[in-house]
Amino acid sequence: MKILISNDDGIDAVGIYILAQALKEIGDVTVVAPATEQSAVGHSITMKYPLRCNKFYKNGEFFGYAVDGTPADCVKMGVRNILKERPDIVISGINHGSNTAISIIYSGTVSAAREAAIMDLPAIAVSVTSHEATNFSYAAKVAQQMAQLVLKKKSAFPPSTLLNINVPHIPESEVKGIKLTKQGKSTWADCYEERKDPYGRSYFWLKGDLIELDSTTDLDQGVVNEGYVSVTPIHFDLTDYQTLETMKSWDFDKLVKE
Amino acid sequence: MKILISNDDGIDAVGIYILAQALKEIGDVTVVAPATEQSAVGHSITMKYPLRCNKFYKNGEFFGYAVDGTPADCVKMGVRNILKERPDIVISGINHGSNTAISIIYSGTVSAAREAAIMDLPAIAVSVTSHEATNFSYAAKVAQQMAQLVLKKKSAFPPSTLLNINVPHIPESEVKGIKLTKQGKSTWADCYEERKDPYGRSYFWLKGDLIELDSTTDLDQGVVNEGYVSVTPIHFDLTDYQTLETMKSWDFDKLVKE
Repeated sequence: MKILISNDDGIDAVGIYILAQALKEIGDVTVVAPATEQSAVGHSITMKYPLRCNKFYKNGEFFGYAVDGTPADCVKMGVRNILKERPDIVISGINHGSNTAISIIYSGTVSAAREAAIMDLPAIAVSVTSHEATNFSYAAKVAQQMAQLVLKKKSAFPPSTLLNINVPHIPESEVKGIKLTKQGKSTWADCYEERKDPYGRSYFWLKGDLIELDSTTDLDQGVVNEGYVSVTPIHFDLTDYQTLETMKSWDFDKLVKE
Repeated sequence: MKILISNDDGIDAVGIYILAQALKEIGDVTVVAPATEQSAVGHSITMKYPLRCNKFYKNGEFFGYAVDGTPADCVKMGVRNILKERPDIVISGINHGSNTAISIIYSGTVSAAREAAIMDLPAIAVSVTSHEATNFSYAAKVAQQMAQLVLKKKSAFPPSTLLNINVPHIPESEVKGIKLTKQGKSTWADCYEERKDPYGRSYFWLKGDLIELDSTTDLDQGVVNEGYVSVTPIHFDLTDYQTLETMKSWDFDKLVKE
């Protein structure tokens, strides 16, 4: 099994190291990850500037390729330029912090996996639901097993879909199981805090709190709160089919001819 | 009508200027846009660094607020920090270049409108389908009329949905009409071209061509190719409900207990 790995916390993060170690047990792993932290960059790609790609060593050994771009750049470059053959699966993570509900939109981790799905490759994004997480071994085991399961079920799993997995930050013995979920409705109450620089000029820093709105048991954030691993199939067809139906009664013909 | 405007081409672009002029005819316009071009930044938001926000003057007059962040940052800051009241609608554009099919995922223009939808505000993204576009007046007229229509239909239009509008780059007299569409399947055949810097070291630049796959008449890229304005309702619930149903037969209970 040829596995491409990326993340958004940067190639030097603990999460991607533990993920790579676990996946080496089941396949041939190539790491292509951002040279620096790229949290919340969404599905940004770099067109205006060139990218560098350097070999990165960890503990004195070659670990992977560090690209000074975004997570989506890394997956694109991994598949298009670095790997000689297409990988069997692309796995992004293990992210330090949850990627549930609205955060999926902002997430670099999820975007790396989505870039793989755009290229018709099976893909998984894995996150542990705490920015202070230090133990990634259970999440790595989940990633390892889900990768094998996705490839086993490949014929029933559309290439344009990826799995977004969130693992609660609790001891493995307390994890209640794995649940299939939908993207939750939790959102951020955020604003930019105004501060003054040493010269008295204003600058603004984003701060906010997650408003938990996912009390039901089949939404990602609600499920991890209850101690389950959340597995959400997501895709990139953004069409709102329900509103599309409603809008069929709108009379466009009257417009722009007035 | 209080209207917030942003874009991804930067506050100094022609498209946003023409848009602002047209919308001033129907409402009270505030412009909050990136200080520099932010194409293809997707739904990136700035958390790691602070932002500056400066007044921007055009033709000797105050035009709007220039933020040194992403389109999503601009909309968030416009709504949360700059405007004293919530706007009635947020309009992003007019983008220089189409935002159809897979490009919706990468688009800063669409992400600005989506950020508004995340804040439960009616939102529209408008693009003209050529990077070389110089005439935005027809697209501005479409934006003006669609803004009025969306607000008129507000009760039948969910706040978490936005309209993604693409206007073909042809003379107004040749435009065949406005069509309701779905996100297309056209995609990019792209890779990173390797070049050498003056010191002989490699750098990589993304290049690619759009592979047109949208021949049917209800997909965004296909419709603009035929000379129609394309209007697509899009949302940010990324759950793949169809695959979710399929996956209910997957046996998660056997996993991670082995």
